[in-house]
Amino acid sequence: MQMKAYIGLDIGGTKILGALFNSKGEILKREKKKTKADEGEKRVAGQIFKVIDELLAYDKNIDLISIGAGAPGIVKKESIISFSPNLPFKNFDLGTLIMDKYDVPFVLANDVNVAMLGEWKNGKHKDLKNIVGMFVGTGVGGGIIIGGELYLGDGASGEVGHIVINRDGAPCGCGSRGCLEAYASKTGIQNAIKKGIKAGEPTVLQDIIYNGVLKSSQIKEAYKQGDTLTVRAIEDAIDALGVGMANLVNTLHPQLFIFGGGLIEAMGKDILKGAKKRAEKAAMPGLMDKLIIQEASLGDDAGIVGAFELAKMYKLK
Amino acid sequence: MQMKAYIGLDIGGTKILGALFNSKGEILKREKKKTKADEGEKRVAGQIFKVIDELLAYDKNIDLISIGAGAPGIVKKESIISFSPNLPFKNFDLGTLIMDKYDVPFVLANDVNVAMLGEWKNGKHKDLKNIVGMFVGTGVGGGIIIGGELYLGDGASGEVGHIVINRDGAPCGCGSRGCLEAYASKTGIQNAIKKGIKAGEPTVLQDIIYNGVLKSSQIKEAYKQGDTLTVRAIEDAIDALGVGMANLVNTLHPQLFIFGGGLIEAMGKDILKGAKKRAEKAAMPGLMDKLIIQEASLGDDAGIVGAFELAKMYKLK
Repeated sequence: MQMKAYIGLDIGGTKILGALFNSKGEILKREKKKTKADEGEKRVAGQIFKVIDELLAYDKNIDLISIGAGAPGIVKKESIISFSPNLPFKNFDLGTLIMDKYDVPFVLANDVNVAMLGEWKNGKHKDLKNIVGMFVGTGVGGGIIIGGELYLGDGASGEVGHIVINRDGAPCGCGSRGCLEAYASKTGIQNAIKKGIKAGEPTVLQDIIYNGVLKSSQIKEAYKQGDTLTVRAIEDAIDALGVGMANLVNTLHPQLFIFGGGLIEAMGKDILKGAKKRAEKAAMPGLMDKLIIQEASLGDDAGIVGAFELAKMYKLK
Repeated sequence: MQMKAYIGLDIGGTKILGALFNSKGEILKREKKKTKADEGEKRVAGQIFKVIDELLAYDKNIDLISIGAGAPGIVKKESIISFSPNLPFKNFDLGTLIMDKYDVPFVLANDVNVAMLGEWKNGKHKDLKNIVGMFVGTGVGGGIIIGGELYLGDGASGEVGHIVINRDGAPCGCGSRGCLEAYASKTGIQNAIKKGIKAGEPTVLQDIIYNGVLKSSQIKEAYKQGDTLTVRAIEDAIDALGVGMANLVNTLHPQLFIFGGGLIEAMGKDILKGAKKRAEKAAMPGLMDKLIIQEASLGDDAGIVGAFELAKMYKLK
C-alpha cells in the first residue's frame, strides 16, 4: 500500500537538512549533506537533489504529496531565491527545478519564517492566528503570521532585527544605525563588549572575543559569573529586545510572541522576563494584557518541521 | 422605486459628521451635529440617532443597506467602543443600539483606520492590498490594511505613533519615552519649540505657543519664514517620521504608504520628501524600491467616506 509522505528541507549556508514526514508529522527518516555553497548554484541544487533522493529511498511505496523548504534570503513566488547572503543564488528558480525533477508541488519560504511556522504549529498555541516571531542569534530575524498564514508583504517582511530603536545609535550591518540587531544579537553584544575592552574595561571574554564569533554558551557563562562588561551588554540587549517587542505589539497587536534562536535557547529565562517587563513599559496600555510569550522548543529541527508544515499548508490550498 | 443607500458616520469628540451615500459612493446628503460628549453616553447616542434620522429624511424610498462608523479609541467586535479618550463611552455597545433601532447591519472601527480606508479606496491605488497609513496631526495615528482588509490584530493595532524610535528619548503622552509621536506630531513639535524657548532661543511662535495648541498653518508659516527653532523642530519631526516609516517598511513591506492628517495637509510636500529620503537610509536595502507614497486628499471627508467603504465591505461579507 502506498504511504502518503512529505519532505521538509532546511537549506542553510553550510548544510542542508532534510526529513521525510508522514501525514501526522512524524519523522520517518533524516538526511544531512554539505551545501557546498562555494561551488555554485548547480552544485547546491545537486546536493539538494541528493538529500531528496536519499529520503525517498526510505520506502519504494512512498506517495510524495509535496516538498517544503526554507532558505536564507529573499524568496519570491514561493519558488525563487532572489537573493541570499549565504547561498550562491541570484534569482534562482529552485522550485521549477525540483518540480520538473520530482513532479510534486514545491513551496519555498525564508528560513526564519519557516522556522517560526514550525514552532507555532508545534507549540501549545497553534489555534492563535496573529503571531510575531523573533529569532535572536548572530543576527535578529523574524516572521509574522497574520490570519493563520505567513505574511510576506510585497515579497519580504518581518525584518524585525532592523527596526530602529535608537535613531543615530550604534551602526548596524545593514548600513543603518540603531537597529534592534545592533544591540540584541550576538554580534551586537560582541561589539558592545569589544567597545568596553577598547575603553580599558576588564572582561573574562577578553581572549575569546578576538577569535571569531562568541558562542551563546560563552556569553551565558560570563553573564552568570557576573562579568561586569557582559552583564551590561546583556542588560542593554534585554532593554533593546523589550523596546523592539513593544514596537511590534503597538503595530500588530499580536496574540502570541514566539522567541527563538541561539541566544534564547542558551539563556531564554534570563532574557525573556526582562524583555517582557521592558516591553510592558514601552507598549500602549492594555495591548500586552493577553499576549502569550512562547519560547521556541524545536532547536535545529525548527527548519525541517516548519518546511513540513509549509508543504502541508500548500497542499491544502 | 426604492433607492439603495448607505450611511457613513464620523463620530468625533466634538462633532458627529454623517452622510447618505448611493451605491456608487456619491454623497446624497450631509449632516452634522454636536457630539455633546460631556452630557454622557446616552446623550451622544441620541445625537447619533438624530444624524441618522435626518439623513434618512432625504427620501422616503430609501432602502438602507448598512451603516458604517468610525470613532476614536479602541473598538471591539465591530460594534463596541471599549474605551475612548474623547468620548464618554466605556464598553458601550453602540452597534446593538443602532441595529435594534434601524434594523440594518452596523459596523464600527477606529476613526483613523476608517479614514485610511476612505483614502485608500478613493485614491489611485485601490488595487493594492498591503498598506500602511500614518496620520500626523495633534498626535500620530495609523492604520494597516493586509490582504485588502483592515487589520485589527487582537482588537487594536496600527498604533504607529507609539513606535519607539529613541529608547529613553523624549517623554510621550502615552507614558513611554521616545515614541514617534513625541517628535513628529503637532504636540511633539510644540514641545520641542517650548524647550527651545525655555533655553532662551527666539521664535516667532513665542506668543502663540502658550495660548493653546499650535495650528498646522502657524507651524507652516514659521517654517517658511525660516524661524530657526521651528525649522529645527520640523527637521527633527521629518527625521522621526522617516525612521518610523522605515520601521513599518521593515516589518510589513507594504506596497503603499498613505500619509494624512493636519500637518501633512498643511505642509505635505515639505515633509514627505525628507521623510522618504530618511526612510530609504534606515530601511533594509530594496524594500522601498517599489513603495508608493500617497498623500491623503479627502480632508475632513475621510471619516464619512471611509465609513461608507466600511459599510460596503461589511455588506459584501
